[in-house]
Amino acid sequence: MKVILTGDRPTGPLHLGHYVGSLQNRVLYQRQYRQFVMLADAQALTDNMEDTAKVSRNVLEVALDYLAVGIDPEVSTIFIQSQVPELAELAFYYLNLVTVARLERNPTVKEEIRLRGFERDIPAGFLAYPASQAADITAFRASLVPVGEDQLPMIEQSNEIVRRLNRIAGREILLEAKALVPKIGRLPGIDGKAKMSKSLGNALSLSATAKEIRDAVKKVYTDPLHLKVEDPGHLEGNVAFAYLDAFDPDRDGLEELKACYVRGGVADSLAKARLEECLQELLGPIRARREELSRDKGEVISMLQKGTELAREEAAKTVCDVKSALGLAYF
Amino acid sequence: MKVILTGDRPTGPLHLGHYVGSLQNRVLYQRQYRQFVMLADAQALTDNMEDTAKVSRNVLEVALDYLAVGIDPEVSTIFIQSQVPELAELAFYYLNLVTVARLERNPTVKEEIRLRGFERDIPAGFLAYPASQAADITAFRASLVPVGEDQLPMIEQSNEIVRRLNRIAGREILLEAKALVPKIGRLPGIDGKAKMSKSLGNALSLSATAKEIRDAVKKVYTDPLHLKVEDPGHLEGNVAFAYLDAFDPDRDGLEELKACYVRGGVADSLAKARLEECLQELLGPIRARREELSRDKGEVISMLQKGTELAREEAAKTVCDVKSALGLAYF
Repeated sequence: MKVILTGDRPTGPLHLGHYVGSLQNRVLYQRQYRQFVMLADAQALTDNMEDTAKVSRNVLEVALDYLAVGIDPEVSTIFIQSQVPELAELAFYYLNLVTVARLERNPTVKEEIRLRGFERDIPAGFLAYPASQAADITAFRASLVPVGEDQLPMIEQSNEIVRRLNRIAGREILLEAKALVPKIGRLPGIDGKAKMSKSLGNALSLSATAKEIRDAVKKVYTDPLHLKVEDPGHLEGNVAFAYLDAFDPDRDGLEELKACYVRGGVADSLAKARLEECLQELLGPIRARREELSRDKGEVISMLQKGTELAREEAAKTVCDVKSALGLAYF
Repeated sequence: MKVILTGDRPTGPLHLGHYVGSLQNRVLYQRQYRQFVMLADAQALTDNMEDTAKVSRNVLEVALDYLAVGIDPEVSTIFIQSQVPELAELAFYYLNLVTVARLERNPTVKEEIRLRGFERDIPAGFLAYPASQAADITAFRASLVPVGEDQLPMIEQSNEIVRRLNRIAGREILLEAKALVPKIGRLPGIDGKAKMSKSLGNALSLSATAKEIRDAVKKVYTDPLHLKVEDPGHLEGNVAFAYLDAFDPDRDGLEELKACYVRGGVADSLAKARLEECLQELLGPIRARREELSRDKGEVISMLQKGTELAREEAAKTVCDVKSALGLAYF
């Protein structure tokens, strides 16, 4: 069975954007593949050393999100990156297999450096994170890694490290991985201005209350030209319809609604009422499961511990193979 | 008791230069301090990925040198760096505490990059090695690290990482270390051209046979102006006398010999005869112990395994402290 590696940087609870972009897929992946789901706390630290509590606090929050949306710890292996020291060890050796110049040329790293305004003050751990990601991928012999278009250079970099190590070893120690770019793009924020993001304040959390959902839907950006009900409405850039596309299970009903909206005669409030209905239906059970699970955090921790132990066992095999290939086996 | 960290990159058997510069001191250190002696195989890999066998092969050779010169595994903890994964883990987190620009400004790193002709193709692991060295030092809470003048910036860098982590933690998690620069400088090579170095072919190995010692002494550079026995001899740049300074236990006899040599009337061959005597006396027992030990390599491996286990226990405590300080303690 093919191995797939998924995961998130736990810097805040997950939101609808994550649900559409990755979480709902993972619920499907776990039926087709052997899935490892990584809470990438160590990676999140590379640019959060001044607020480490934010990272550790959110590990549990994100774990709750995972369980609430239906990632099943009996099928998927959910684990905490920092608690698998084998990953740091692999990353440490992989740093010898990539040049500084190559890391600096990595387009994803370049863009992330620009976004964070690091300029020349890049933490070395941040520059090094392609090696760390290569460790995460190879440790579990993942051959599939779902990523956005912007992350494709990271997979390429990981595969370069794999090829270099295999060449040094003279045989295939590590597997190359393929990027799996999901068809559904990123969900816009409720303000329609950019992709949904907690830091931009345009996100709807997976743990939102019924009232928060209602309030968010009221604020959802629609069509600024659609002033009167009878005016024709526009679908492009219309967040209410983007969300309905993502969340309305009644595809025929939705197509009908869209047609009417475009012709004119459908109030924004009508589209929004349907959207609220869909979101309450989607998020209600997630919120209920999340609340129930969060009542026994010990249980969640114990699930994470089990997953982490399993992940360590897998990663330890890879460390052993890599170190043997480098001649580092003495005892 | 203060902790001292010493060690070598195992890229070849050790020679007289190592003996004078560090090994003989370690035999003394182990009586005053709690000494950890590291076989830095992982560090040696940072610029030997294309010849990993050279590194692993020499781990045992250097361990034999250690034991032969009198480093006592019952008192000192001799361990193999790569077999203490806690060191890689610490280094991985320390990379977040130093910027790329700061690593690139490190004078020792700069000089080593120049020496190796890396230009822009610096392996990332090589640039990162100050973080790795900081891991080695802090893992054992070493407060003393014997280094040459040229390595002082490495200790400074390690202390910067220590201060940054302690600031983030809000309390003293890690100890700063002091460099211990040995008074005796580096031993010149037998050709008098540079410091003794295996790669320059001007070294005398610690495992040299009696004949190899005799042949080396014959080649030792003396005073090119000292053509006739009755001519005054010069001591500056005279390797025979530099070695006698380092190895002749009869200090009074040596001073007398020097005075006569400078006045004129002492043949180079006389000084060399005394030098050979001293070297045979020094290296004979070392060679004998080394030969005896190398007959039971299993015993040496088992000694290394014991030392490595002890080192792991110590390093694990530091990893636990550092990760707790960063909030990475969940179970």
